[in-house]
Amino acid sequence: MRDSLVAAAFRLFLERGYEQTTVDDIVALAGVGRRSFFRYFPSKEDVVFPDHERCLAEMTAFLGDGDDAADPVARVCDAARLVLGMYAENPTFSVQRYRLTRQVPGLRAYELSVVWRYERALAEYLRGRFAGRPDGTLRADVVAAAVVAAHNNGLRSWLRSDGQEDAGAAVDHALAHVRLVFAPDPPAAPAPAAGDTEEDVVVVVSRRGAPMWRVVQEIETALGRTSD
Amino acid sequence: MRDSLVAAAFRLFLERGYEQTTVDDIVALAGVGRRSFFRYFPSKEDVVFPDHERCLAEMTAFLGDGDDAADPVARVCDAARLVLGMYAENPTFSVQRYRLTRQVPGLRAYELSVVWRYERALAEYLRGRFAGRPDGTLRADVVAAAVVAAHNNGLRSWLRSDGQEDAGAAVDHALAHVRLVFAPDPPAAPAPAAGDTEEDVVVVVSRRGAPMWRVVQEIETALGRTSD
Repeated sequence: MRDSLVAAAFRLFLERGYEQTTVDDIVALAGVGRRSFFRYFPSKEDVVFPDHERCLAEMTAFLGDGDDAADPVARVCDAARLVLGMYAENPTFSVQRYRLTRQVPGLRAYELSVVWRYERALAEYLRGRFAGRPDGTLRADVVAAAVVAAHNNGLRSWLRSDGQEDAGAAVDHALAHVRLVFAPDPPAAPAPAAGDTEEDVVVVVSRRGAPMWRVVQEIETALGRTSD
Repeated sequence: MRDSLVAAAFRLFLERGYEQTTVDDIVALAGVGRRSFFRYFPSKEDVVFPDHERCLAEMTAFLGDGDDAADPVARVCDAARLVLGMYAENPTFSVQRYRLTRQVPGLRAYELSVVWRYERALAEYLRGRFAGRPDGTLRADVVAAAVVAAHNNGLRSWLRSDGQEDAGAAVDHALAHVRLVFAPDPPAAPAPAAGDTEEDVVVVVSRRGAPMWRVVQEIETALGRTSD
C-alpha cells in the first residue's frame, strides 16, 4: 500500500508536475482512500522522501550501538554511507526525485531539513566521542558538516550521471578526502616525566619547504598532544 | 517604514507568539496598510529575517571583488564574518530571533535555506579558486561547509549567552580552528635569496603550555609566510 502510493505519486509528479498533483489525484490512481495516504505520510511532501525517517533511525541505531573502537571520523563516514545505501537501492527513483527536488523550492527546503537532521545525528555522536577534549563540540560540528558535504558531493555526482556512475566509489572517494583532512590523532601522549612542567621548552626544527601540516604534526608530537 | 514593520512584528511575536500573529495584526500596530508590508516582505517569515538578503548580497560582492591574493580559506572566513557582523549589530534583536527560531519549525526551515545560500556562495567562490586542482570541487564544498559550521558554532554560543559573550572572539576562535584544519598548501614561497634553499633549517622554540595557534603563528613567521 505504502509502495503503491509512492509509485502513484511519482507517476503523477512526472506526468503533471508536483504542484499540479493533489493528494486526491494520488489516492485515486492508487485506488485507496485519503485516510490511507495520511496514515503513511503526514503531507504530500513526505511521499517524495518516503525512506528518510527509516534511514535516520538506522543511522541513530548504528551510531548508538556502542562499537566505539574505530576512529570517530571513520565511524561517522560509515554512518553517512547508510544514506548512500538508501539512494543506491533504487537508482531510478533516486534520479527522478533528484530532478524533482531541483525544480520545486518547497521540496528543496524539505530536503535541507532532512540533511540537517542527518548532520545533527553525526554531530551529536561526535560530541560524545570528543567530550572533554578542548574544542570538542566545535570539532564535532565541523567534522559532521564536512562529512555531510563530502557525502553529498559524491551522491550528487552520481545522481547527475543519472545513476550511471559507481555511487559507492564516488562517495568513498569523497569521504576519504575528509578522513585525510581530519587525520586521526597521534597516539595519546606519554605521561609527563618528573620535572616536566608547562614551562618546558620544546624545540622544533623544520625545513623551510615543509608543508604546514607536516610542521603542525611534528609540533603536536613534540608537545605530546592532539591538534586541538 | 521597513524598520517599524520589523519592530511591530517582533513586539507581537514576543507577546502573542509567532503563529498567533497575522500580517494584519502587524500592519495595524505599525499603522500602515497591508500593501506596504508586502512591498518590503514577501511573507510573514521574511520579516523575521529582514537583513539576510542584504548580507548575502554583501557577501557575494565581497567575494567577487577580485582581491584574490589572500589564501582562499582565509577569504571565505572573512566573508563568513559579514554574517556575524549582521547579528552583532543588534544583539537584542538577534537573541530574540534566535529564541523564536528555535520554537517555530517553519522559521527553522527558513533559516536552513538561508544558511544553505551562504554556504553555496562560499562554495562557488572556492570552486573558482580551486579550479584545476584535483578534487577542487569536493574540497570547495567541504571547506565551505566547515566554515559555515564553525561560524554557526561560535554564533550560537554567543546567542545562547544572550549576547553577553564576545561574539567576535567566539567566531574568530572557531574559524581559526577551521583554518588550522585546512592548513594551507605549501608556498607560493617567496623567491629564495641566494643560498636560501628549501633545505634551510628553521628552529622554533616554544613553551610546552603555549596554545597551538601561537605556535603555528610563530612558525609561520619563521617560515616567512602567512597562515593561509
